[in-house]
Amino acid sequence: CDDAAMAEARAHDAMLTKPPGALGRLEDLAVWYRGWRGGARAEIAAPQIIVFAGNHGVAARGVSAFPAEVTAQMVSNFEQGGAAINQIARVNGASLDVVPLSLDRPTQDFTVAPAMAEDEFTEALRAGWEAVNPEADLLVVGEMGIANTTSAAALATALLGGGAEFWTGRGTGVDDAGLSLKTEVVAEGVALHADKGDGLEALRRLGGRELAAMAGALARARALRIPVILDGFICCAAALSLARTAPGALDHCVAGHLSAESGHRRLLGALDKEPLLELNLRLGEGSGAGLAIGILKAALACHAGMATFAEAGVSDA
Amino acid sequence: CDDAAMAEARAHDAMLTKPPGALGRLEDLAVWYRGWRGGARAEIAAPQIIVFAGNHGVAARGVSAFPAEVTAQMVSNFEQGGAAINQIARVNGASLDVVPLSLDRPTQDFTVAPAMAEDEFTEALRAGWEAVNPEADLLVVGEMGIANTTSAAALATALLGGGAEFWTGRGTGVDDAGLSLKTEVVAEGVALHADKGDGLEALRRLGGRELAAMAGALARARALRIPVILDGFICCAAALSLARTAPGALDHCVAGHLSAESGHRRLLGALDKEPLLELNLRLGEGSGAGLAIGILKAALACHAGMATFAEAGVSDA
Repeated sequence: CDDAAMAEARAHDAMLTKPPGALGRLEDLAVWYRGWRGGARAEIAAPQIIVFAGNHGVAARGVSAFPAEVTAQMVSNFEQGGAAINQIARVNGASLDVVPLSLDRPTQDFTVAPAMAEDEFTEALRAGWEAVNPEADLLVVGEMGIANTTSAAALATALLGGGAEFWTGRGTGVDDAGLSLKTEVVAEGVALHADKGDGLEALRRLGGRELAAMAGALARARALRIPVILDGFICCAAALSLARTAPGALDHCVAGHLSAESGHRRLLGALDKEPLLELNLRLGEGSGAGLAIGILKAALACHAGMATFAEAGVSDA
Repeated sequence: CDDAAMAEARAHDAMLTKPPGALGRLEDLAVWYRGWRGGARAEIAAPQIIVFAGNHGVAARGVSAFPAEVTAQMVSNFEQGGAAINQIARVNGASLDVVPLSLDRPTQDFTVAPAMAEDEFTEALRAGWEAVNPEADLLVVGEMGIANTTSAAALATALLGGGAEFWTGRGTGVDDAGLSLKTEVVAEGVALHADKGDGLEALRRLGGRELAAMAGALARARALRIPVILDGFICCAAALSLARTAPGALDHCVAGHLSAESGHRRLLGALDKEPLLELNLRLGEGSGAGLAIGILKAALACHAGMATFAEAGVSDA
């Protein structure tokens, strides 16, 4: 992070035609963003959204309200422009890339084996790494994968403790019996795989290809100094595996939206991130973070476009 | 409000390719919006932001951190494109109109006389009424007026009770001595003018031209069935004067942003409105509501643009 760029940004902000602090979190966002991008003041012109999709062996345990074929059907829907994230990307002027990951080859059911073999895991990480556009100036990663809140809950339980019931939620909308089964499945997976290595090893054992790809993309974005808006529970579980492997690995990330998925508030707390929005979404796809693109764009537009007191001939306080 | 359009919107939402309820508040926003607009599904294409500016006699009491000439200077800044609201309007694809209201003729100091004579008040209401573009499909009203948080606090105190200290905040950033003086000025004004009539009479006595114009614009928007996003403390104080005159007068309005101005949370509570955003802004100009335009645009884009389960060939739960 570029301390000189941040200092210049903070000093510039103090000269803009507004009372000090009156733009609230927009001011901090602009300073943080400029610290990662460095260089001259500029608006956000090329935000990228990537939706990774994967299938989960654990779906066969009946943990989701939807059948597993919905993952591939929704990938087709993304490609045809019919999903929520397509509309949110368009409204916010973001490009949208869809990356299906071996959908015909679900991961192993993590209650009986690691979700991914070493080579499968590496392949998924690399798919995420390579999906990031080096020309992007802001990144959102989203996901689609029936049963992936089960995977995310298992990761959070393994890495943060507290028990499966503390992290397992209703996902796309399972009923009480479904939640009970899902919690049991999470507990089984964690019992088999906990304490077997660092955050990335937990991601290989309990995650899924789309979670691994999100982690790969987050790491690449950091290497490219592209700021990231984190999405909901699943994205943050993937991010957690990075944070538990390398402290500070998420310094280039802000939280976009507090999901209605029950464990997300606690997960954001563990990541020490304060969400920009709280609109009760629980969809995934990058939808919550996608909505926050407009907030970040406005923050940089104000920072780069506003006149100073001197330029505008406005009397200071 | 068009009940048939709302029912059609709710039924259409249930067919879209997402788990029921997964778009959270976006779903409710789309249904509410369509109820006011009626007719076919459509995206938001022509949002209008109007910034009204007025000067306040009570500024001479020293209640603001900034000198009164800043009102006219900021109007010039709006016209030159250098203020925060210019950037926020641009990022959100909104038109921006600036309406200065007799800036060379401040209102009367409300601690000694009603802020506006009857004809001045009517003129300001009409300026607001006429500023609304009948072709707009979404409206934000903002304001600029040195000392207008003093006016807004007096209105809230007169109409809602609780005492001047309950409603008086730091505005653009007065210090403790300034806050103390400001609270005293609010109390003096309320003692002189309270219980002298309905909400509009309170607006004439304690408000300002830009607050009256905002009330006029809100009423016109309702007549034209143009949904409104309310801004911060001052906008909501003007809106309160309508709500206290005609129950339901704000049914076409949602709250855009919870301001850092201390009384705003309570004022939104009195209006029974839940803000869409909470980003710690306290600038006015319509900035908080302007940021929420993107959220409402995304809600309608999802509602109008998403494929149904049947169209996309996606299996339902």
